[in-house]
Formats: sequence, structure tokens, C-alpha cells
Amino acid sequence: MRIKIAKTAGFCFGVDRAVKMAFDTAENSPNAVTLGPIIHNPQIVSRLESMGVRSVSSPEEILPDTTVVIRSHGVGQPVYDYLCEHHIPFVDATCPFVAKIHQIVKEYSEKGYLILIAGDKTHPEVEGIVGFCRSGAVAFNREEELRKMTEKNPEWTSRPAILVAQTTFNIQEWRKSAFFAKKVYTNLIIFDTICNATEMRQQEAIVLA
Amino acid sequence: MRIKIAKTAGFCFGVDRAVKMAFDTAENSPNAVTLGPIIHNPQIVSRLESMGVRSVSSPEEILPDTTVVIRSHGVGQPVYDYLCEHHIPFVDATCPFVAKIHQIVKEYSEKGYLILIAGDKTHPEVEGIVGFCRSGAVAFNREEELRKMTEKNPEWTSRPAILVAQTTFNIQEWRKSAFFAKKVYTNLIIFDTICNATEMRQQEAIVLA
Repeated sequence: MRIKIAKTAGFCFGVDRAVKMAFDTAENSPNAVTLGPIIHNPQIVSRLESMGVRSVSSPEEILPDTTVVIRSHGVGQPVYDYLCEHHIPFVDATCPFVAKIHQIVKEYSEKGYLILIAGDKTHPEVEGIVGFCRSGAVAFNREEELRKMTEKNPEWTSRPAILVAQTTFNIQEWRKSAFFAKKVYTNLIIFDTICNATEMRQQEAIVLA
Repeated sequence: MRIKIAKTAGFCFGVDRAVKMAFDTAENSPNAVTLGPIIHNPQIVSRLESMGVRSVSSPEEILPDTTVVIRSHGVGQPVYDYLCEHHIPFVDATCPFVAKIHQIVKEYSEKGYLILIAGDKTHPEVEGIVGFCRSGAVAFNREEELRKMTEKNPEWTSRPAILVAQTTFNIQEWRKSAFFAKKVYTNLIIFDTICNATEMRQQEAIVLA
């Protein structure tokens, strides 16, 4: 078997930046933790642990006088609120492309828009996006899922609504979903929030296959 | 030669609605004009003329006591201002999908964003969109054009910017343009404003070819 390595393989901009910020924090703060593993890479997570930076799975686990690193996936507003209320200092390594989605869903959900999110609802990035929605947010992983949910909730189609995507969402599924949504939702704004690195990788994967 | 007629051939929703509104206006208003031909269809334009509704090419041509029909392509803010200042009543048949683009570019240009428009700058729809931009708006017809303009104006890439499309823009060119813009513009929000009817037609054209 021949293994081909894609040109676009490696850390994306957002993860690369978050890892650098975690190492900087490790050097500068006597007590630091990351909220969830900073990256899907055991070697780097181990190196951070050897510098005293372990990963915790929820804000409640954070001990006093500890600096928290928020990873590139981002977190929802309630986590920021918790950190502020408990005076926990934090370094925000949320990917700027994800932070942009947070701004968008916050603004439109405050205006009462329905928020449709093309993404995996169990993925931390989507949990963070949902955590910035002030009112109804709905995540779906496939166009078919959006279609079924819409059939069950026909009143959604006439509500002011926006459609955004998890930055790493599948492009073919996104195009199908946007096409369906344009046809059925009569008061919809579509934000294409899939990140460039994702598009490049998916295109290269098709070429390599 | 065999001529195949596409299933999606015919008036789109926005034009259909505008034509109905023009006929309603013809019946209800003694003096009415359309601002530009209501549709690219000489038979319908003739029928309207026989009902006393002719087409004028600029607001300055409108005589007193005349009702104006704004066609589906829409017009820029200065035209609305002119009509209001001169107390000219109007029926607004702007396609709701185009009106949505007007809202978007107005809001973001007021905040100082650079407005990138994928569209033909000589097309009335794009002229109308540009006419809602409070600050810098740039239209381009091909990804290559956007690329060249960006090379000449590298300072654009770090400005807050949005990308929108003429509702009838070519989908392949849109995807290429959005892909390029995501890579180069670091503070960009992309609105997919190509209308569903356009997508269906372009897809069917590919299948028929």
C-alpha cells in the first residue's frame, strides 16, 4: 500500500495558533490548564503536561489561581460568564473564524432569528456556537436531517432565519443544505462560514482518492 | 436541431411578482410608469403600454401625478430619496431576495466594511446594490478580476469586508471567488445571496448541455 500525504495535511491556522498560545501560557503562568485537549495530538498534549499544563473537561474543575486556555474550537457564552463570575483569568485561543460565527449567531439570535447550524451537534465547536445563541438554535449534520426537521416544523420556514456552518463542515453537504434552505425558507440569510483550510483539504482529498 | 426546453424555464418568482404588481398598478392608477422595462419580454411590455404604462429610463423623466413601479432588479437609495423628495408615489416590486442584499450592504457599509459584490457592475441589480452602499463598494464579474483588484489594493485584505453576490451570478464563478476571498481576506463575512431559481437553472443547464 502506498501512502500519499496531502499537501494541506498538518495543523490549520487556528489550531497552530492555539498550540502556540498554550505553550506561551505554560511558560508565563505558574498554574495553567486547557479546557479540553488543545489538539488531537498526544505528543503535544504530553509535552504540555510535562510543563504543568493539564486538560480539564469542565470549568468547575478549575482550581483557584489557575489560568485557563480556551482552545481553538471555542466555548459558549455561559463558559465566559462562569470564568468572569469566578474571577478566573483566561487566554482565549478561539479560532478567529469560529469567533466570527459566535458574533453572527449572537447578533441574529438576539434579534429573534432562528439559527440553523450545519454541523455536528456533539462537536465542541458546535456546542460553543449553540452556546452563543440567545434563542432557538438547531444543528444538523446532513441535508436530509434539515429536510426532516423542517417537515416536522413547517412554521420555521416563514420565520426570519440564518444558516451558518461549522468551519469544518463537509462542502458537498453544505451546498445541498444551502440549496434546500434557499428553496424552502422564505426569510433566510446564508453565511458561508466553512473555513478555507477545510475547503482546500476536502478538494485535495477528492483529487487524491 | 432539437430544442429542449428546461423545466425551470420561465419567469422567476421575483419577476412574476413584479409583472403582477405592474398590471395591478396599471388598473388602479390613471398615470403609471415603470422605471426601466419591467421584464425582458416585448409582448408584456407592449401590453402594459396599451394600458398606458410606459417605461422611463430615469426618475427625472417622471411627470407629476404619476405612480412609479420599481422593477424586480431594485434601485439604489438615491432613487428612493429622489422619489420621496419629489413626492412621487411608488410601488416597490423589488425582488425580496434583492431587497435582502440591499439591507445587508447598507448595514455593513454603514459600519465601514468594504463591500465586495460578485456581479456585473453594468447590470441594474448591481447598480441598485451599489446604490445602497454607504462606503467603498467593488463589483467584479470573475474570480480573476477580484484577484487582480486585490493584488492592486493589498490593504483591502485586512479591512473588515463582506462578500455578496448578484442573485443571478454564475455559481462556479461564485465558488471560486468565495474560495479565493476566504484565503486572502482575513476579516471577511460571506453571504451566499445567489437565488434558488438561479441555482436550479444553472444546474439544469449543465444537465441539458
